Amino acid sequence: MGYERSNIGRMTGYVYGEQPDDPAVVKLNTNENPYPPSAAVERAMRGFDADTLRRYPPATAEPLRRLVAERLGVLPEQVVVTNGGDEALRLAITTFVDPGATFGTTDPGYSLCPVLAGVQGCAVEAISMTTDWSVPGDFARRLNARGTRLACIVNPHAPSGALVEAGTVAAIAAELDGVLLVDEAYVDFVDPALGHDLTPLVAERDNVLLLRTLSKGYSLAGLRIGFLVGDAGLIDPVVTKTRDSYNVDAIAQELGTAAYADQKHARKTWRAVLRERHRLVDELRARRFRVAESQANFVLAEASGDRSAKTVFEGLRQRGILVRHFDTPRLAQSLRITVGTPAENDALIEALDDIL
Amino acid sequence: MGYERSNIGRMTGYVYGEQPDDPAVVKLNTNENPYPPSAAVERAMRGFDADTLRRYPPATAEPLRRLVAERLGVLPEQVVVTNGGDEALRLAITTFVDPGATFGTTDPGYSLCPVLAGVQGCAVEAISMTTDWSVPGDFARRLNARGTRLACIVNPHAPSGALVEAGTVAAIAAELDGVLLVDEAYVDFVDPALGHDLTPLVAERDNVLLLRTLSKGYSLAGLRIGFLVGDAGLIDPVVTKTRDSYNVDAIAQELGTAAYADQKHARKTWRAVLRERHRLVDELRARRFRVAESQANFVLAEASGDRSAKTVFEGLRQRGILVRHFDTPRLAQSLRITVGTPAENDALIEALDDIL
Repeated sequence: MGYERSNIGRMTGYVYGEQPDDPAVVKLNTNENPYPPSAAVERAMRGFDADTLRRYPPATAEPLRRLVAERLGVLPEQVVVTNGGDEALRLAITTFVDPGATFGTTDPGYSLCPVLAGVQGCAVEAISMTTDWSVPGDFARRLNARGTRLACIVNPHAPSGALVEAGTVAAIAAELDGVLLVDEAYVDFVDPALGHDLTPLVAERDNVLLLRTLSKGYSLAGLRIGFLVGDAGLIDPVVTKTRDSYNVDAIAQELGTAAYADQKHARKTWRAVLRERHRLVDELRARRFRVAESQANFVLAEASGDRSAKTVFEGLRQRGILVRHFDTPRLAQSLRITVGTPAENDALIEALDDIL
Repeated sequence: MGYERSNIGRMTGYVYGEQPDDPAVVKLNTNENPYPPSAAVERAMRGFDADTLRRYPPATAEPLRRLVAERLGVLPEQVVVTNGGDEALRLAITTFVDPGATFGTTDPGYSLCPVLAGVQGCAVEAISMTTDWSVPGDFARRLNARGTRLACIVNPHAPSGALVEAGTVAAIAAELDGVLLVDEAYVDFVDPALGHDLTPLVAERDNVLLLRTLSKGYSLAGLRIGFLVGDAGLIDPVVTKTRDSYNVDAIAQELGTAAYADQKHARKTWRAVLRERHRLVDELRARRFRVAESQANFVLAEASGDRSAKTVFEGLRQRGILVRHFDTPRLAQSLRITVGTPAENDALIEALDDIL
């Protein structure tokens, strides 16, 4: 007989990927960037005056907010800096979805979404991705029929890595009655040759929120910096009402700003991941895995024939290599594998050859 | 015609104290510790390997959690580390108060409480403090009559600084049907001679949560570290369900742990604040302010006669001294003044003499 709300009592919490203490483990399970952050982060830390910590941090992370706005060609009022992308997602639900109202997502999608909706007491309408990992054409129509207030698509999609192109996203946003949140956690790893860019959509539509994070593209998962970009009418209630007043600490602000300012370093890591992603896909396909076309820093590899993905997962684990296995009907035969350094990917391939 | 929920559209956000950029301003408005944090914080920062930031932080801040548990004589399962005390308060409301249910507080109290309740869509029952700043004897009974799921008392109380003694808190907890959250943000500044300690209550009652923060007592407002201590049955849903998985970043965890481990430094700052609080109260009373007995790092000074607190506030502001004025009927004639360094308090007194 707990004191917690009945919906909290009934629900299951989010299960995050394993974080092993052993530094020898090849960690390809939580989509971290395999390269360290910009040296500017280290410099910013060395230059930080710890005595200033006795004061509250800048409440709205103004220097980082302005830098983000400038780079994306929007106004600072169209940006809110958050304590990681997870907080951005939570704040969107808190701000736009009444308890009992519907939150829309894809199935599969980011498994945190239904957890956050459960905390808020929302109904979840999860629209199945097509067999080729596209968002179905009737996505917005079906969500509108349910009175959906906020819909989230992860793009590039997780766990498949598939990219929904800008025109399709624009069409969904135009048709959707509620707010469309595009979780772009992995957007930095999209092949630059595609010229993929959703920021113009923010100027065109008042119901689009882009979620970005420094966790992956800027190698700062440990720092917890994300942001939302959208129409000022969507951003304002998050900044002034639903966000904790001092949601991002002073050091994280400084270091995040330093990392975001060093685009050159970040882009170098993106290119390295892109090269290794191509190689990893080829190697996996050569070993009879079905691998979806990925624009993210991970690939989804489906075991073919009578191989069991679960068995491969366990075999890798025994060999000190962590990947992610989701025990759901659609994903039970697949492994989500983060693209690592060349050496880490070599270790993975070798271990696979050993297992198979 | 916004997309935000109607309760969010109607509500007013939290108004935090002014954070001026000018370092020359004597800042006695947001109850920060006037002394810098432990030198161990600086050392921990120098020793931190920025490259590790590419990985997610320890999800439940385990080293800090264990240190807090050990010091307070509870199990780690009875502690959850949060992104500042504000997140702890928000999480308590999220976890224990259904939308439409009642959240109890005092009037006046922490002005963030009704804002957080508004975001969650709760009803707020604010029980007036007595004229001598005590919690009235029928506090629990009146809240029970409203079906209150969670009640918050700030102790030492803000903005008066008055302390509710442990026996009274125990009686409230015993009578209250819901959860009692005691916001102990300022507890480190209580006179040690009083032997005030609510941690034994956590072992006795399954409905008590203590909120602590490193913001004030450990001079780390900029770092955003707080925690809740309570029965494992209250803490578990916060840890596993309602909290963002990685709510405290890796550097904040390290630096917070270093500061909390250096009790000697922290206690030194508490003693210095205590000495200056006594002096400040005497000086203010000598200038015909009515000053409530404070056990916090601030005092509430009520202007007497035909003096206007608002005018004094403005006069101080013009002289580069920020204090806090709350424009509510009960507090309109009072100023909440943070206890500063001896030099800052001297500057305040001098400015008052100039104004009066």
